[in-house]
Amino acid sequence: MTSRTSQLEQEIASQPALIAAMLERELPHVAAICAALPPFDYALIAARGSSDHAALYAKYAWAALDGRPVALAAPSLLTLYDAPPRMNGALVVGISQSGQSPDIVAVLAEAQRQRRPTLAVTNDPTSPLAAVADAVIALGVGPERSVAATKTYTAELAVMAAIAATLSGSRERLAELRALPDALAATLALSDAVAARAERYRYLDRCVVIGRGYNYATAFELALKLKELTYVMAIPYSSADFRHGPIAAADRGDAALLVMPSGRAFDDLLVLAHDLRAMGLELLVISDAAEALELATTPLALAAPGNAPIAEWLSPIVATLPGQTLALRLALARGLDPDAPRTIQKVTRTR
Amino acid sequence: MTSRTSQLEQEIASQPALIAAMLERELPHVAAICAALPPFDYALIAARGSSDHAALYAKYAWAALDGRPVALAAPSLLTLYDAPPRMNGALVVGISQSGQSPDIVAVLAEAQRQRRPTLAVTNDPTSPLAAVADAVIALGVGPERSVAATKTYTAELAVMAAIAATLSGSRERLAELRALPDALAATLALSDAVAARAERYRYLDRCVVIGRGYNYATAFELALKLKELTYVMAIPYSSADFRHGPIAAADRGDAALLVMPSGRAFDDLLVLAHDLRAMGLELLVISDAAEALELATTPLALAAPGNAPIAEWLSPIVATLPGQTLALRLALARGLDPDAPRTIQKVTRTR
Repeated sequence: MTSRTSQLEQEIASQPALIAAMLERELPHVAAICAALPPFDYALIAARGSSDHAALYAKYAWAALDGRPVALAAPSLLTLYDAPPRMNGALVVGISQSGQSPDIVAVLAEAQRQRRPTLAVTNDPTSPLAAVADAVIALGVGPERSVAATKTYTAELAVMAAIAATLSGSRERLAELRALPDALAATLALSDAVAARAERYRYLDRCVVIGRGYNYATAFELALKLKELTYVMAIPYSSADFRHGPIAAADRGDAALLVMPSGRAFDDLLVLAHDLRAMGLELLVISDAAEALELATTPLALAAPGNAPIAEWLSPIVATLPGQTLALRLALARGLDPDAPRTIQKVTRTR
Repeated sequence: MTSRTSQLEQEIASQPALIAAMLERELPHVAAICAALPPFDYALIAARGSSDHAALYAKYAWAALDGRPVALAAPSLLTLYDAPPRMNGALVVGISQSGQSPDIVAVLAEAQRQRRPTLAVTNDPTSPLAAVADAVIALGVGPERSVAATKTYTAELAVMAAIAATLSGSRERLAELRALPDALAATLALSDAVAARAERYRYLDRCVVIGRGYNYATAFELALKLKELTYVMAIPYSSADFRHGPIAAADRGDAALLVMPSGRAFDDLLVLAHDLRAMGLELLVISDAAEALELATTPLALAAPGNAPIAEWLSPIVATLPGQTLALRLALARGLDPDAPRTIQKVTRTR
């Protein structure tokens, strides 16, 4: 293990302050953008990689708070099949850290041709994606030097949450959002406990990562972090889909990472956690609930500052943090460089 | 290996004739349903498990042929969060073999309350799902006795294809669809070659399954078949997403099943196939193209009756067959009962 602090570790640690600053700066901007939106019936979001997981979060958070369905775009329709869909009724959104991916830019350019409203969420407001959008929300979290996305992912989630809260018009939701950075900082402060557990998984080869509802996205993002940083074959599922078939492949001794903060999805995950324990699986549990953490060989606790658990709709932003730290520490335990995973590049230009 | 023929093998073999009969019976019915549809801007499809993979196919096929985007519903919004989305502008579709899953029924019931047009696709026209829909397309392929879906999955795809072709108003697409059963029969006739290859994977522990565009759905379905029937941890990806990060977890010696029939997505998969070979992975390739099959340790050939390769938009229905056979044969090579995988039941009642 190297004593040099990795870029990844610094970027993970920077998240609470950067997200606090982003919300301070962008919440009035988001309010202005939302107030100026023309009527729309549904949102069509184009994204790839971690940004696609932010879109998956929006699919739940926007629909739950604002009431309009979210469709995840299939950019291949434009780039492979020359079949741009008719976007009548849609608000068209592109999410990309770099703003460079040609297929995501193509979806927004087509929306502009069809005179549909467009919104870009990117860390680079001078990028091609920003250039083709009516409105741009800049993450403003500074350059991300590690290949694996951390601060840009949680910042994208926070932007999606800000849009959901703003569209809902609820002061209560906005107040919950403003309390988010404290919950992030308090959860990061528990990281030492995560670090101490990583060594156990030095020879882990495969695992499943399970969330539901708002945290379906968290399962996808943490599975990707584990694959990118530790080369573990981590497979994400919703608890509902997992029972529909994939559970058959789960073996005694397999590891399951369960993302189960308090909220409406908790009971379903709790039943599954008991079932998986009975099948002989080892559980890693991300939760604020003692009842859930007690079932785990490796509990990854979420902090509840002021004893109030984070609102479920915001829990994916907090629940991502211990998973990031686990992936970082496991990469180090395996002697891997967390800043430069093999094979992949920071910007993938999909066509 | 048992000499008794499994239900699964019989159901796999039955697909060409059952789909031919379904198309004969249902194409006029689909035409009448589509002609009677009120205007809509996009489709919202609710489904779980293999049926969700049929929805994923429709996301590409409907948009490419008919031009309207497809959103995959998040049933948890209704069942967990009491937050039914406003479905203005949507055609709301439920796909379920059994027609029993309460969450899928809930989405269509909500659409009826909102007076949106609804369509059910199910193997049981007397099911609760059928009861809440304006129009019902029955698969009519007879009871599926094996737990793993085969004939109901390909029949669902064929119904989705029939709707796409009908909405497109193209005689050429309808003619291509009518040629489908011959391609299915000719591909199934090549199954002996698949069976002979299964033994090599007796101790396979994990693999990736990759497709793109229309065959993104095929990657998901075949990964599920492998998990359900052989307990291999098979992870599905689009080739675009795979390069964005998960490729880092691919090791020398790992197996990759590539679904790459001729068509617009072929070149992207071919580049990836060469890259994965150079990384030392072993390829299993489902394709009609010699150029692709030659790269494989295990080629799984698609037949091209009359020397015309199947149209790419229909290729997922054909490309599923060798994957089903591979999963069946590998289950037998492992001494597993293909009709009754451990842990799972035929009907999962998700709430």
